[in-house]
Amino acid sequence: MTPVTIIGLGAIGTAVAKAFIAAGHPTTVWNRTGAKAVPLEEPGAVRATTIQEAVSANSLIIAVLTGFEATREALQPATAELAGRTLITLNTGTPVGARETAAWADEHGAEFLAGAVKNVPAAVGLPDTLLYYSGDRAIFDRHEQTLKVLGGDTVHLGGDPDLAALYELAVGGMLLPALLGFFQGAALVTSRGLEASTMVRYSQKWLEMIVQLLPSLAHTIDTRDYSDPPSALGLFYEGIAHDHEIGREGNIDVSWHEPMHDLLRRAVAEGRGDQSVASLTELLRKP
Amino acid sequence: MTPVTIIGLGAIGTAVAKAFIAAGHPTTVWNRTGAKAVPLEEPGAVRATTIQEAVSANSLIIAVLTGFEATREALQPATAELAGRTLITLNTGTPVGARETAAWADEHGAEFLAGAVKNVPAAVGLPDTLLYYSGDRAIFDRHEQTLKVLGGDTVHLGGDPDLAALYELAVGGMLLPALLGFFQGAALVTSRGLEASTMVRYSQKWLEMIVQLLPSLAHTIDTRDYSDPPSALGLFYEGIAHDHEIGREGNIDVSWHEPMHDLLRRAVAEGRGDQSVASLTELLRKP
Repeated sequence: MTPVTIIGLGAIGTAVAKAFIAAGHPTTVWNRTGAKAVPLEEPGAVRATTIQEAVSANSLIIAVLTGFEATREALQPATAELAGRTLITLNTGTPVGARETAAWADEHGAEFLAGAVKNVPAAVGLPDTLLYYSGDRAIFDRHEQTLKVLGGDTVHLGGDPDLAALYELAVGGMLLPALLGFFQGAALVTSRGLEASTMVRYSQKWLEMIVQLLPSLAHTIDTRDYSDPPSALGLFYEGIAHDHEIGREGNIDVSWHEPMHDLLRRAVAEGRGDQSVASLTELLRKP
Repeated sequence: MTPVTIIGLGAIGTAVAKAFIAAGHPTTVWNRTGAKAVPLEEPGAVRATTIQEAVSANSLIIAVLTGFEATREALQPATAELAGRTLITLNTGTPVGARETAAWADEHGAEFLAGAVKNVPAAVGLPDTLLYYSGDRAIFDRHEQTLKVLGGDTVHLGGDPDLAALYELAVGGMLLPALLGFFQGAALVTSRGLEASTMVRYSQKWLEMIVQLLPSLAHTIDTRDYSDPPSALGLFYEGIAHDHEIGREGNIDVSWHEPMHDLLRRAVAEGRGDQSVASLTELLRKP
């Protein structure tokens, strides 16, 4: 049982610390405001009072802060102690931040992996929970069993330390648009005096259908062959009127769809009406 | 085995006709351009050459056209034949169109249900495929077993004929935003020389997580109690910078996010930063 130090006790950091404690790993915790660490002492964590003490305590340091800048800032007073240790980050930072932090860790003699938890705090530690990491494969291999405490679906994406952040941005970018689509639907059914809960089952099935579409959409994007589509762009173009109808029917502000409609209009003007809707990817790429 | 007439042989209409033929229902088909009906004759459909002939052939008429206006237009020459029959629509029309078509059917002495297929054409006829209908419950009950040929998950939403169209708009509004989120991610990973297919598994898991979140989000919206959130709006507000980073990292046009960012900024300005992200629903409602 490798001893671990957890830096940062927000919702995810606390869940990470609890998972290690529950799995029997000697666990040291540190948070800028010490109060968040106190509830972890009872189940067995050692609370470090300084960042230097936290880093010195163990050779494996997991930083669960809001981003890479915050990570370097929190660890700056303890760079002398970092040498010879392994630093693993779990955050939703940027690729450029990951690259800078990899260089910074290297400068201070620390090994480095950048990772991300692809789920909510309550899912940390469950067998199906996905976490992915990038950076030197040998470092990942050495710590894989320890990292699996945080989720059974633990993946190494590649040797470039910024890949986890890249995939985090790529995958995470679906969340806000998808949720806003759901909220808009909720605003519509509630405008009719119906509960938003009545649409959940249908929205879930709809998302499951999108889940099933992704492999063929991705294949289409990779081959750049947008002919013979399962979902023609023109159908979405015709659907623009339906979005406006949502606004009229439910007295809802649907203006957040406008730039999406502009993309559809441009695509149709370029002659993509009969192509797969995935050809919108081409319009998102700047020249 | 109730005989059925299928009006409109686009992708969904053809799938509907094939499902009835396969299930052994005597099936009459009609399409404005007759060529689309020809391939259905070999498996056993009767091809009507006029819309009057198609409507007269059976007492159950299923119209699978692009919307309600197209439905009324196609059936207009056969209104005399409609009396005493049941008209069921499957389309992605608007609630107002459903109400107008219900009145129009009533005027011509026809019973009416408005429905929608919540899946791709290839899924028509499968046990888990969802279709929902609205309109007089007695009409639905009488035809439920026949309609189940099109999908095992066949639901009656309520007596108002426009409810299927309402839910269709409410649920369907997630699709374009969610897909664009995926395409943006695909543009990002491919900008790095990686295949979009490499992100599919992660995007699918991410969507599955959203599926799990919907019940609590809907409950939050129904109670309008946005405190104690599993996903705080402020975290999405902080994520605005990440969207811009996607643009910089992958040379991608992320401007379609701007109105979503504006909603987040307005929400934070209203003091909703610590509330559930579901409180964005309140901002979508016009005064």
